[in-house]
Amino acid sequence: MPKKFMKAERIEHGTLIDHILAGMAFDVLRVLGLSNDRGMSILINSHSRKGGKKDILKIEDVELSGEEANRVALISPQATINIIVEGKVVRKFKAEAPKVVRGILTCSNPNCISRQNEPVTSEFRLSPDAGHRYVCAYCERDIIDLAKRVRS
Amino acid sequence: MPKKFMKAERIEHGTLIDHILAGMAFDVLRVLGLSNDRGMSILINSHSRKGGKKDILKIEDVELSGEEANRVALISPQATINIIVEGKVVRKFKAEAPKVVRGILTCSNPNCISRQNEPVTSEFRLSPDAGHRYVCAYCERDIIDLAKRVRS
Repeated sequence: MPKKFMKAERIEHGTLIDHILAGMAFDVLRVLGLSNDRGMSILINSHSRKGGKKDILKIEDVELSGEEANRVALISPQATINIIVEGKVVRKFKAEAPKVVRGILTCSNPNCISRQNEPVTSEFRLSPDAGHRYVCAYCERDIIDLAKRVRS
Repeated sequence: MPKKFMKAERIEHGTLIDHILAGMAFDVLRVLGLSNDRGMSILINSHSRKGGKKDILKIEDVELSGEEANRVALISPQATINIIVEGKVVRKFKAEAPKVVRGILTCSNPNCISRQNEPVTSEFRLSPDAGHRYVCAYCERDIIDLAKRVRS
């Protein structure tokens, strides 16, 4: 196989998001509102050195903010964010799933007050148990299929 | 930057689609009906050695058929298909835009007979001029925004 097929492009400036849950990279792009007008490398179901599979995203010329990292953590709580400047990782942090989420998620309950065109901002709380579950502050429903409930 | 960030995974068996029009890789995935349940590397707006930008797709454990290559050529006529077996390119061919396309595209004219729930299969002909244009065999309308008119 010619060498050119074996490497993704090194980026000089941007963000690398590692340890995305396998198969979730497209959802991460969607919740970040990123489109295909910039340089990106996307690895889907890549073999992790720790065993298992993961997705990896490399986005050129974008430095993810803390708020954006939280959006990633919502749907992929193990992700790590690497900010790259001049070809080097200058900052590395773990995305942290926020304890309270306002306005980003839509409740899966169609009868919830937050979905009645009332001036009510959706609000969810991270469940204190070990699972990565968000519960609606109004109707107490668990969010099902988190990735699909994130507004883009 | 740690070395692990610089390379995409080499694949032992699968297909590499090179020279995809820049920004069209997601559309190529869609027209091929590929989902995120397999290993893939996607490079968007990658720098081409010939200058300009292109997308590259590497799909694990899939050998694209001629019909699938034609689907790719419909929306990205310059693409090249490389079939990889045991880590080596065993077959390389240029996707060829088909002269006649039946059933894959939907006409952009809502009044076209092919869109009236009649037992009529859509049919388009590649325009003989230099541009990459497809014209409806029924209403003679040009297909506008080809990628969006391909049925998935």
